[in-house]
This record gives sequence, C-alpha cells and structure tokens, in this order.
Amino acid sequence: MNFKLYKNSFLCSSEDYLNSKVVLAGIPLDFTVSFKPGSRFGPSKIREVSSGLEEYSVYQNKNLFNKVFCDMGDLELPFGNVDKCIDIIFEFGKKVFQDDKIPIFLGGEHLISFPLIKAAKEMYDELVVLHFDAHADMRDDYMGEKLSHATVMRRAGEVIEFKNLYQFGIRSGSEDEILFAKENSNIFFIYEMEKLFEVLPKLQNKKIYLSIDIDVVDPAFAPGTGTPEPGGLTSSQFLEIILKMKDLDIIGADIVEVSPYYDISDRTSLLAAKIVRELILLLG
Amino acid sequence: MNFKLYKNSFLCSSEDYLNSKVVLAGIPLDFTVSFKPGSRFGPSKIREVSSGLEEYSVYQNKNLFNKVFCDMGDLELPFGNVDKCIDIIFEFGKKVFQDDKIPIFLGGEHLISFPLIKAAKEMYDELVVLHFDAHADMRDDYMGEKLSHATVMRRAGEVIEFKNLYQFGIRSGSEDEILFAKENSNIFFIYEMEKLFEVLPKLQNKKIYLSIDIDVVDPAFAPGTGTPEPGGLTSSQFLEIILKMKDLDIIGADIVEVSPYYDISDRTSLLAAKIVRELILLLG
Amino acid sequence: MNFKLYKNSFLCSSEDYLNSKVVLAGIPLDFTVSFKPGSRFGPSKIREVSSGLEEYSVYQNKNLFNKVFCDMGDLELPFGNVDKCIDIIFEFGKKVFQDDKIPIFLGGEHLISFPLIKAAKEMYDELVVLHFDAHADMRDDYMGEKLSHATVMRRAGEVIEFKNLYQFGIRSGSEDEILFAKENSNIFFIYEMEKLFEVLPKLQNKKIYLSIDIDVVDPAFAPGTGTPEPGGLTSSQFLEIILKMKDLDIIGADIVEVSPYYDISDRTSLLAAKIVRELILLLG
Amino acid sequence: MNFKLYKNSFLCSSEDYLNSKVVLAGIPLDFTVSFKPGSRFGPSKIREVSSGLEEYSVYQNKNLFNKVFCDMGDLELPFGNVDKCIDIIFEFGKKVFQDDKIPIFLGGEHLISFPLIKAAKEMYDELVVLHFDAHADMRDDYMGEKLSHATVMRRAGEVIEFKNLYQFGIRSGSEDEILFAKENSNIFFIYEMEKLFEVLPKLQNKKIYLSIDIDVVDPAFAPGTGTPEPGGLTSSQFLEIILKMKDLDIIGADIVEVSPYYDISDRTSLLAAKIVRELILLLG
Amino acid sequence: MNFKLYKNSFLCSSEDYLNSKVVLAGIPLDFTVSFKPGSRFGPSKIREVSSGLEEYSVYQNKNLFNKVFCDMGDLELPFGNVDKCIDIIFEFGKKVFQDDKIPIFLGGEHLISFPLIKAAKEMYDELVVLHFDAHADMRDDYMGEKLSHATVMRRAGEVIEFKNLYQFGIRSGSEDEILFAKENSNIFFIYEMEKLFEVLPKLQNKKIYLSIDIDVVDPAFAPGTGTPEPGGLTSSQFLEIILKMKDLDIIGADIVEVSPYYDISDRTSLLAAKIVRELILLLG
Amino acid sequence: MNFKLYKNSFLCSSEDYLNSKVVLAGIPLDFTVSFKPGSRFGPSKIREVSSGLEEYSVYQNKNLFNKVFCDMGDLELPFGNVDKCIDIIFEFGKKVFQDDKIPIFLGGEHLISFPLIKAAKEMYDELVVLHFDAHADMRDDYMGEKLSHATVMRRAGEVIEFKNLYQFGIRSGSEDEILFAKENSNIFFIYEMEKLFEVLPKLQNKKIYLSIDIDVVDPAFAPGTGTPEPGGLTSSQFLEIILKMKDLDIIGADIVEVSPYYDISDRTSLLAAKIVRELILLLG
Repeated sequence: MNFKLYKNSFLCSSEDYLNSKVVLAGIPLDFTVSFKPGSRFGPSKIREVSSGLEEYSVYQNKNLFNKVFCDMGDLELPFGNVDKCIDIIFEFGKKVFQDDKIPIFLGGEHLISFPLIKAAKEMYDELVVLHFDAHADMRDDYMGEKLSHATVMRRAGEVIEFKNLYQFGIRSGSEDEILFAKENSNIFFIYEMEKLFEVLPKLQNKKIYLSIDIDVVDPAFAPGTGTPEPGGLTSSQFLEIILKMKDLDIIGADIVEVSPYYDISDRTSLLAAKIVRELILLLG
Repeated sequence: MNFKLYKNSFLCSSEDYLNSKVVLAGIPLDFTVSFKPGSRFGPSKIREVSSGLEEYSVYQNKNLFNKVFCDMGDLELPFGNVDKCIDIIFEFGKKVFQDDKIPIFLGGEHLISFPLIKAAKEMYDELVVLHFDAHADMRDDYMGEKLSHATVMRRAGEVIEFKNLYQFGIRSGSEDEILFAKENSNIFFIYEMEKLFEVLPKLQNKKIYLSIDIDVVDPAFAPGTGTPEPGGLTSSQFLEIILKMKDLDIIGADIVEVSPYYDISDRTSLLAAKIVRELILLLG
Repeated sequence: MNFKLYKNSFLCSSEDYLNSKVVLAGIPLDFTVSFKPGSRFGPSKIREVSSGLEEYSVYQNKNLFNKVFCDMGDLELPFGNVDKCIDIIFEFGKKVFQDDKIPIFLGGEHLISFPLIKAAKEMYDELVVLHFDAHADMRDDYMGEKLSHATVMRRAGEVIEFKNLYQFGIRSGSEDEILFAKENSNIFFIYEMEKLFEVLPKLQNKKIYLSIDIDVVDPAFAPGTGTPEPGGLTSSQFLEIILKMKDLDIIGADIVEVSPYYDISDRTSLLAAKIVRELILLLG
Repeated sequence: MNFKLYKNSFLCSSEDYLNSKVVLAGIPLDFTVSFKPGSRFGPSKIREVSSGLEEYSVYQNKNLFNKVFCDMGDLELPFGNVDKCIDIIFEFGKKVFQDDKIPIFLGGEHLISFPLIKAAKEMYDELVVLHFDAHADMRDDYMGEKLSHATVMRRAGEVIEFKNLYQFGIRSGSEDEILFAKENSNIFFIYEMEKLFEVLPKLQNKKIYLSIDIDVVDPAFAPGTGTPEPGGLTSSQFLEIILKMKDLDIIGADIVEVSPYYDISDRTSLLAAKIVRELILLLG
Repeated sequence: MNFKLYKNSFLCSSEDYLNSKVVLAGIPLDFTVSFKPGSRFGPSKIREVSSGLEEYSVYQNKNLFNKVFCDMGDLELPFGNVDKCIDIIFEFGKKVFQDDKIPIFLGGEHLISFPLIKAAKEMYDELVVLHFDAHADMRDDYMGEKLSHATVMRRAGEVIEFKNLYQFGIRSGSEDEILFAKENSNIFFIYEMEKLFEVLPKLQNKKIYLSIDIDVVDPAFAPGTGTPEPGGLTSSQFLEIILKMKDLDIIGADIVEVSPYYDISDRTSLLAAKIVRELILLLG
Repeated sequence: MNFKLYKNSFLCSSEDYLNSKVVLAGIPLDFTVSFKPGSRFGPSKIREVSSGLEEYSVYQNKNLFNKVFCDMGDLELPFGNVDKCIDIIFEFGKKVFQDDKIPIFLGGEHLISFPLIKAAKEMYDELVVLHFDAHADMRDDYMGEKLSHATVMRRAGEVIEFKNLYQFGIRSGSEDEILFAKENSNIFFIYEMEKLFEVLPKLQNKKIYLSIDIDVVDPAFAPGTGTPEPGGLTSSQFLEIILKMKDLDIIGADIVEVSPYYDISDRTSLLAAKIVRELILLLG
C-alpha cells in the first residue's frame, strides 16, 4: 500500500517548478504585527479553500488537470525589517521572471507589488501595470514613510513611468494623490468602470503586470480585507473582467490584501482562489 | 384567561394538514455528523427567522393570513444510515403527493431532492425538474458513492429523464459532469441566466418540481451554506425569478443547503424564509 | 411505513402534560425589540442544542428516558406591553402550580421570575426563593420603571418577604440596592460562595423556587447573555451546586437570560440545557 | 512639546458649533435593553470607523478639510422612559434647527425620526420628508404602542401631512399599513426604484428632511441592523442615489438602525460613515 | 541571495523523517461533508497557529530547536469511503510504528484512533491506551454503524482488551455504554480526576498510546470542537496533566476533534498546538 | 430644557483634570496597520463597555461616584513613526507624573509601557515595576528591532534596574530571554503564582508602576488579544490579585493589548474595564 501525504497547496498544483509555466508563491508580508491580524495568513487560507472549488472552469471550459503549475509555498521574510523584506521579494521576483515563469503572487499586503513590479521591469522593458483597487495607493509618503501599502503605486509608477500605469475601480484616495494620478497615471474611478473595455484592446500587445487588491470588490463580497471600502464591484463583475483579459500578454500577477480573520464564511479567500484558478487557466 | 403556547413553526402556519393545499416539512438530512455542522439545523432556523418577516408580501399583494398551510415539523430520520433515510424520505414524499398536497421541503442537504423527486414522479407522470444551483450535482458517483449531494441531479435525471431536467445558475462542476449535462439535460450557466425567461413559457403546461439550492445566490447574500461559490445571483435577482414563476404548475418544491452556523447575521435563512413565503403565496 | 415528525422540543420530552410531574415552558419575554436581540430566542436554542447531550447523566446515574416530562412550548406574549405580559405569565404560572406540576421555565429575561414567583406564592404559603445571579436585581426602580430585569428580585422579595430570599454569586449592583439587600434579604457575594453549603441544609424543609440567571457563570463559560460580568463561577462549579440541591424541595425553577446571538459556539445554551437535564433528573 | 488628546469623533469634525453649518449628533435611543443589543452603539461605531475613510471624496471631488462641521457627541437620554426621550429629542432638534444648522443625526432606532421631523416642522412650514427604508413603518400602532420604530412614519406623516411623505425602497409592511401608505403617502416599492429619478426634480424647491434607515440597503451590504430584509439596494446604488440629491434643499437628515454587533466586518457602519461624509460634502 | 520557501508546517519541524524520533502527521478524516465543517481543517490550523508559540517551554525548560522531529503533512484519504479510510490509516500507522517512530497524529475526528491503536497493537504487544475525553465513546454501534466517533473506544478496547483502557475526564455517555465501561474498562469521571495521579504511577512500565479528544477541556477553553460538553477541565489543568506524564513510556499519541470554524479566537487550536509542543519535548 | 451631550468616556469619569488624583488616558499605539487590527481600538472599546458595569464595587464597598477622576481621551500619535511615538508618549507621561497624578493608561500595545515607565522613573527615583503577562517581553531585540512589544520589559528593566522588575504569570518566552530574566529580574512563572503573596508585602513601601498585559488571563476569559496563550489565570483569580494590592503605593498603571475585534462577546474589554474600575477605587 502506498500513502500520499500532502501539505497545504493550491488545488491541483504540483511541485514541478521546472516544467511549470505558471508558478504560485505566497508573499506573506505584513510588516506590522507578529501574530494574527491581517493579510499574513492570506496565502495559506487561499490554498486551503481552493479545495472547495472544482479543477474545471465552466467559464473557460478548461481544466487545471491539463496544466502543469507549481505552488512554491510562501517566501520566508525577516519579520519587522521592511527594507530587507523588500529586497528579498525583489530578488525572488527577479529570479522567477528570469526563469521565464508567469508568477501569480499571493499577498500579503499591497506593498509587495512594488518590488515585484520592479523585478518584472528588469526583465520586461516596456512594462504596463494594470491595477484594480478601491484605493489609489498613490501617496508620495504615508506618515513620512516612503514604503507603505498606501504608496505602492506611486513607487511602482516611478519605476515603470506613470503613463504605463492603469488604475481601475478606485473610489478612495487623498486629494493630493488623486490629483497626482489624474495628471500622471491613467486613473479610472469606480463610476467609470466601463472605460476598461476601451482600454483593454489598447493593451493587447503590451507586457502586462496585473495587480489585484481584493478590496476592489465590494466588502459584501470580500469582507475579509484590511481596509474595506463600500461601493465596489460585485464578484460576478470582477470575474467577468478577469475573463476579458484572455488576449492580454500578462507576464505576472498578484492578488493581495486577503485577511481571513474578518470573514468567517471564507468567501473572500474563495473568491481570491477562484480568480487564481481562472488566471492559471488563462495564462498557463 | 387563555394561554397560547406554540412551538417553532413557520410564520402564520397552522397544524391543519387536512385543509392545507401547501404543506411545509423539514427534511434535516445531514448524513454525516451527529451534532452541529451543516444543514441539519436549516429547517429550524428558517422557521425561527420567519417571524422577522411580514405575513403580507408587497411583491404579490397577497397575505399569508388568507392561506391555510400546514407546517408539519421535521421528518425523523435514522441518523447515519443513508439508504434508510432515502427510503423514509421517499415514502414520506409519496404520501404527501398522494394526499394531493403541494409540499415545500426545507433541507437539509441537497441529496433529499432525489427521493422527493422520485416520489413526485410516482404521482406525476410527466414531471419536469427546475433546478437552481451553483453546482451541477451531476456526477455519476462521488468518491465511489452513488448517493451524495454531488450526484443528486444525476440520480434525479435518471428517474425523470434528463431531457426533463432544467438547470440554472450553474457555475461549478467537474469537466465530466458538465459534459454529461450539456449532452443530456438542459443546463444553463450563470452567464446565460436570461435564457430562463425563454424557458419558463415553455414549461407552462408541465408539472414542475422546483429544487432550489440556496447557493445559487452569491455568498455575499447567502453566506450560510456548505459550499459557497462566488459569482452568483443577488437576492433581488432570485426573488424576481421566483415571482416570474406565477404561471407555472409547480407541484412541489424544496429549498436546501441552508447552514445557519456560517452566518451570524441570519440573512441566508431570512432569504430562504422569504422565498418560502413567496412560494406559499404563489402556490397556496 | 410510519413517519415521525417532530417540532423543536427538549431532548426526550413528551407532550403528555397530564402525566408529567416536571413540565418545561419557554417564556420568551424580551419586551424591547421586535426581532433578534436578546433572550427571546433562548428557549428555542436551549431545546435545539439539547439534542447534543445524552439522555443519561453520569453525575446522577439517572436517565431522562425513565422520566415523563412535558415540553409545553413557548408561551405567547403580547409584544411590547409589559404589564399585560406580566399578567399572562402570572396566570400561566398559577395554572401550572395549581395543576401540581414542577415547572422549569426557560427565559427570556429575568423579569419573568417576578410573576412566576408571585404565582408560586399563591400556591405555597411559605415560599423561599433561591437566586443565582451576577447581579442583585434589587433596585426599587430602574430609570423610573418598577418592572425591569434590574428590579425583579426587589419585586419578588416584596411578595415572599425579603427574609425568604437567598441570593448567591452576586458581584454587581448599585450601592443602594446592595445596602438594601444586606439589610433585608440574604445576599452572598461571589467571594463567599462557600456559604451556600451552610445555607442549603437550612433550606431542606422549605418549599423552594429556584431562579438561575445564567450570568452567575463567568462569561468565559456563558458568553451568550445580555449583561456579562467577569469574575463568575465556572460551569463545573455551577453544575456541582445544582447536584448539591438533591435534598431540597424545589417546587419550580427558571433559567433566564440566555442570548444565543452572542455565542457562536453555543456553549451557553448547552450549559443551560445541561442544567435543565440535571434539574429534571433531580425533580422528575 | 504639545499633546493632542481626542475623544471618538467623526473624521475631520471640529467642536466649533458656532461656525458650523452642518452638525452631527448621535441619538442613541434604544428604549429597550440596558446593555448591548441594537442600535445604541451605532453612533459611536460610525465615528470610530470613519477614520478608515479618506477626508476627500472622489465622487464629488470635495474635501472634508474644507468644511467646518461640528460633531456634538451623543444626546443623553433617560433610559427606559420613551415619552421623556421623545420630548428631549424633540427639544434638542428644535434648538438645532433654530440655530440654523443642518443637522445629521446618527441613530439609534428609527423612532428618533418622529421627534426630529416634528422639530423640523416647527421651523420649516412646508416640510417634505424623503424616506429610504426596507419597511414602510406606517402602522398606526404596534402591539398597542403608538410610538415605535414600526409606527414612526405614520406619526411623522400626521405632522407633515402624508402627501409630503415620499418613501422609497420599501419591501416589507403589513397589509394595512401598505394600503394606508398607498392611499395617503407617496410610497414606492423596491421594484420601482427608478421612479425616484422622476420624483427628485419635483422636490427641488422644497425643504427636505432626509431619513435613511440603513436596512434599505440589502443585508449583504449592511448586515449590521436589527431587522434585515433581503432583496434591497446595493451599496453602490445607494451611494449613487445620495449623489443625485445635490440640488435638493435638505435641511436635516438622519441615518438610523446601524447595529454594530451583527457585523464583525464593520461594513455596515463604514457604509453609514461614507454616506455621512458624502452628505456633509453635499450640504456643508 | 538565497530564498527560503516553506509550506505550512508545525513550528520548528523538519522534513527529515529518517532522523526524527517524533513524527507528526495530520489525519483529516471527516467522512461526512466534502467541504468545510468539522475537524478536517484541524491539522492545518494547528500547524498555522503553532507559529504564535515559542519554541521554548518554560514548563519543561526545553527547546524544540534541540529536537529533530518531522512534520509529514496530511495523509491523503479517499473521501466518503470510511472502510477504505480506516484501512489506509491503519497501514500508515503500522508503517510509522515499524519505523520505530513516536508518532503524534493530528485529527480529524476521533474515529482515527481506532486504526491507529490497532496499528500500535501490532507493534507493541502489551499496549495500554490512555484516553482523555468528555465522552466515553464506548457504544457498540451508533445508529447501526460499528465505526463511528461514538464507538471508537469500544472498537479500540476490543483490540487491546478493555482492562488496558484507561479513560479520564468522561462526563457524557449513554447509560449502556457507561455501564459497559464501568464493568470492562477503567473509566474515571470528570469528578474523580484526581484518581489520575494514582493511576499514572501504575502505568510507568507499560507501552502507552495516548488519545486526547480536545473536548476533555471545557468549551470555554476549547470552543472549536464538534460536540462541546460543558463542565470540563481548564486548559491549565490539562497542561499540568500532560507534564505529569514525563515518566511514561508513550509510544504514540493523537489529538483529535479540533474544529477551527467554531472558534474565531483560535484558542482551541493554540491549546492543541501547545499540547503538541509539550508532547514533542517530553517524547522527542 | 437642558441637553447633555457626551462623548465616549469611562463610566462616571469627569473632564476635571485639575481636581483628579487618578487620570485615565488612552495610548492607542499600534504602529503597524493603518486601520482595524489590534489594540488600537482597545481604549475606545473599554470606555464603551464600561457603561455595562455598575459604579459601585461589591468587592471594595466603594463607589466611583465618590471619586473625581478624569478621562483625558486618547493621545494623538504620528502613525507609522515608532520613535516619534515613543517620544510623545514619554513626554506625555512625564507631564502627567509631574502634575502629581496617578495615571491609568489604556493600551494600545505593550510597547507603550517603556516610555511610560521611563517617565515615571524621572519622577520616582526608586521605582519598582510590577508586571503581569503571559510573555516575558524580555528580548534584547526582536527581528533586529530594539523597540517592540517583545522587548518592552528589557528596555524598561534597563531604566529601572532589573532587580526592581517583578514579573508574574509568565508562561511564554524564548530560551534566551527567560535565562536573562532568571538571572536579572524577578520572574515568576504561571505555576508559581502563589509566590506573589510573598512578594507583595515586600513591595509595600515602594513606589510601584503596575503593568498589566491582559493576556496574563487565559484566552477563555480574554480572547480579544493579539497573542493569546492558553494556560493562564481565570478572571476571578486576577480580580482577586488586584484587590490584594490595596496596601501598595501604586503611582501609575497601564493595561494593554486588548484587541476588541477577536471577541464578539466583549468580555475581554469588560474585564479590562472592571480592572480599571477596581484600580480607580483602590487608588483614587
């Protein structure tokens, strides 16, 4: 008799990094508290609930069984030292991009997108960032700190040039950052979501890094997040948007800010897992 | 002075089985654990929260006070023995249909629909099943088991013929079962919900058994269920659908998979209770 | 084939009022809000979770199967009208005592004890009230209201004479009411619990009405209650106390202030159900 | 070194009553229980979570920093005595209106709207009430009580004349009250929400008191409320409605029935806080 | 730069099976529902929260850093087929015992103990089972089923002989099973816990399998379990008991029935993790 | 008619700083996340639930009504900048001590104790710190950071000399820090709690700063905290300890790490509020 033992991994994933085009990795940055609160447990929960989904997608008529993709586990980070964490995430991202993988990173807080986008930029010269979020995240600093979840797209924009940054679903920001975004990046507010369908065709030949803050979805559908903001998308609307990306050349993605402790129904992490499944089927 | 004592019953229900056209019965099948988890407590909670609703419906301009309907309580089931439970539910269903009642069964898990549909089929030769669910439930077996919540519509289809099975709201299934459904039953995915309004007129002269898995509704609106699947209907959309059925000849219905323990706001059981109220007003 | 249908009743209870010595009745007084909050759903939840207990008690080596006791359901009360509710509860209590039953009333809020004790007093001339609570409930009025959960033992004491009132577990009260209790009733604070074992023998030949506010137990063990007060008994300590009453002549009892909505683990209602089981075995 | 100490206040509010056009005040009426359940903690929670929002609104391109508005704190009420509470609220309302303020009152239960509307009526002769709610609240009495959350709009209508009452989003009511509303007030059910956009222009030159029961929004978006009713608006729809009121002459408003204890994600109070922010920006 | 990636493992564990004396393995048997409820997610949660503990124990003045122990992950089980699951668990257990390991199994439901004890018995001829539980688990069958969480110690006793079964903390059982236990095994009720300290010395030269149902601890301390039973041990008392076992020759252990979904504070799984840490330090 | 408006303040507190001996101040340091998680909302919740307690204490037969004490509100802190926060807290503490007040500080995280103790030390030359906690908090650094909740007592000890530090209830720590504490401070583990009663008399003539981490109490009694550690005190035991301090010369105190979001029953903050009430009555 043979036994199979497993550790918590994403539905249908393998450990075969070499032969995988798509790879998953958790980046549980949560540089604040040493236990419990926040997005630190996001990757682990997303993996866990993925077993509640089917491998097959009725939306795409495709099956994870036919994809080889690797779940690498969570990146180990030196807790409490933001700068060093950023370095490690950057180096890790660089390695994955150099290995010619299409990574899907599971946050952790949104700040992880900055080193990951920087890493992608090293590999892909003309990089576009497609950003879904309730918050603009475009402050120059937050309480004096340059590296924060509230500044991440400002930092990212500095790396890729702001004209290459497309932001959708935004419904919260300080006056300054919104003004900055209006003048520099391509910002679209929640009430002009339909512009997305004009923008997507223009992005078709670009290398795209996709950054999804789960709070772009309304807290009714995704209550398990750190800074819920009412007035967002439904889960159906966002799943539809994901499917609209099938002709894009997405070279990497992240999905961040899932905080399992504020959602006893687990629908936030289930939604994240479903998005990840659809992305793997799109990109793998 | 007179006292009235009551036990937990559905809003405005009587104990007068004889004179009731519509009858309610709980079928708390939950053939797994002996205490707590799951849909076993669904019927009891639906009854309890029904007192938070009005007897009158502004949608139909009708009043439960003007209907005589009986709440029979919950069917006693031999815990742990699936086959025997199925038998008892079947016999019970047969009796109710033979008494010429229009039953509304409160689950319990979805498996109860199989013996109930089989019982209805004994009474009504040309039976159509109208099925709302996030999941196709069309597997031939689940981990080797022929009788499971994941196979219930396969078993039901074998009894009524698959061409008489109409499935709506589906957004999850294995590749095999979806293929089978596409070839054999009438399956409509969540993204083609509007087809319902083409189908309903065609069903007008048929005897219809209506089977509602509460998870057809998005977990934002119905978090209290065993296998929540993001990307579903809103509660408003589903209530509208119910009201569209007013010209159908519904001979029985069930509403299943309400699991109160995952929803501290009780909105899942409130929604179920509201659906039941509207059904009684439609059918009674 | 025979079917058994049941409504939510206490474990092992019958509907045979006539032959029952012990009878249960829910008194869901909660004269405040029309839906949800508070102790209104206490009786229903206590019944529901009773199915998670065994009929047999290892503490008393006795079995509910050998007792005939009736669960009468919940008393219907005119919501919002306190005075009328009090009247109905009083008349109901009187009837039950006149029928020579030993009732166990399930609250609802503590105010129900006043009309019930008054009813008992009509039957039993020399009535002693044994009261377990975190709060003295001995105010003369509460915000000008004479009938309130905070005045219930003052009102009760006026009926039975304060010298016949024994209060245990008290750890909260206004200065005035505590002073009044010290001078008039027999009040014992939580830090002098051991006095109970001196008092119990003295009560052996008295007719005793037992009134249990679940909050006498610490909120760690009974979080589902309206006014939790830290520093209480453990559930083990209180179960032990119940068993110590086996030689008392208890003619009626109530257990009040179980509010299921603040306890997702249901341990509060489970504890209440276990106390009820032990009381039935003691008294039945 | 200077220290700043603060108490829980609404985001960006001042204590400068004199120079404020808009003023906030909590009216924590919850005339039922002395601790915990219900809307009593609504004002405090709405203030607390307001710190999770931005001062700037992307919807209106306006900033709270540019508004002087005062958060007056919560009105102290004699607990348990409804009549006296109503008096105090009325007098308080009158004072605020006489001081020529535009108040936004934070409930507390819906009953507060009656004395507040009565107070507004003393100041504004031709007052229109614009009412958003799941429930009609038009009963003549509730269990014999004339003053209740279920009768509040009946009482208000008697003061302002029913023809000046506009009700939107209604999806629950007794047959009698709905009949009364249809014949007397301007009632619009949830399924005719688009009529609002015909009505709004007609109200442009009227003095309007706006009364928002948070349960007009679906419990998926606002689970933290006392009597949730499935089938309501989304938070996006309701925010859009608020913005549509920019040309109205709103002389006062309330937002009621936020019950924080039934919503561990706080999205109900966040939504209320966001509505309040938008109202201040509209009216201030 | 080197990256370390990890999957969810017990604090300080390695993957070095060969050199480990103590090994951990999750046995997520939960032969009932396919997603969510119950003890299936116990092992994963216990691992996750173990990171909230220190590697060092102040109780034993020992450090996990100085122990080599392997976390093998979770055993894969064919969902829904109890008999086959039992076989696999038995074979797996046998293998581990044959490899001369001291396993600590993480449940999963209590039924897992039966095949594990049977496997241990194959290796150790004179096996004693030391069982801590709220429930006797000594029924001959449960609803006709021979293999159930309610029969596990009856089955285990048949294998090891009942005289070798020691049961502590018991406070719930049917009359029959308690009678059987009294006559056949060594059963000690919760109110005679101090007998443990007489029994332990007698067990010093025996090979002992330790089976811990987390519900031996009171639901105040361990609310996250399937069948909570009030009146149990405190966490301190149980930790003390564990430490008293330091001179026993424990050849294997399990800790079962941790159901994370009923405990948002995670203290149940934290307690389980702490017990596991102490056991590793005792046995490793 | 006069209106009284109030903001969230501790039960019975005044705003009269000048005439208060005891003063309360919230120090909501939570230098990590910008919204929601953790102890940031502790002070606000403790104030809120204090209204659920009586002003009078049956333990001390004293009444808050007879004490003048001031609730100063919460100290405003520059979010994200730890060093600056520490400075402000230090200066604030110094001011309060210089004004000859006995402050009770409400955390916030435990790190606040360091600047507060340092401030106290400036005023009181021979300062003793009496520390109750599950964790030693004696690391030299935590992930390279010198200022952290895990190092707070190391830093404090450096200021007051370690021989003046008394630690009780400790049950968690790294091997190094425990070794350090054993050699330098006066550390007492949870299993030697009775030593407290030998130590207290020796402290009678000392100036004492009392630092209470709520997690010294078991998570059954105080689940709402960031790093719960099973095996702690009961709430009764800790209240008893507080009362034993009546002869000590306590010159200031803090109570930290109350995190309301992990405790829907609010018993953690209620316990904290009760401790604060008893402290005011002891010290005021």
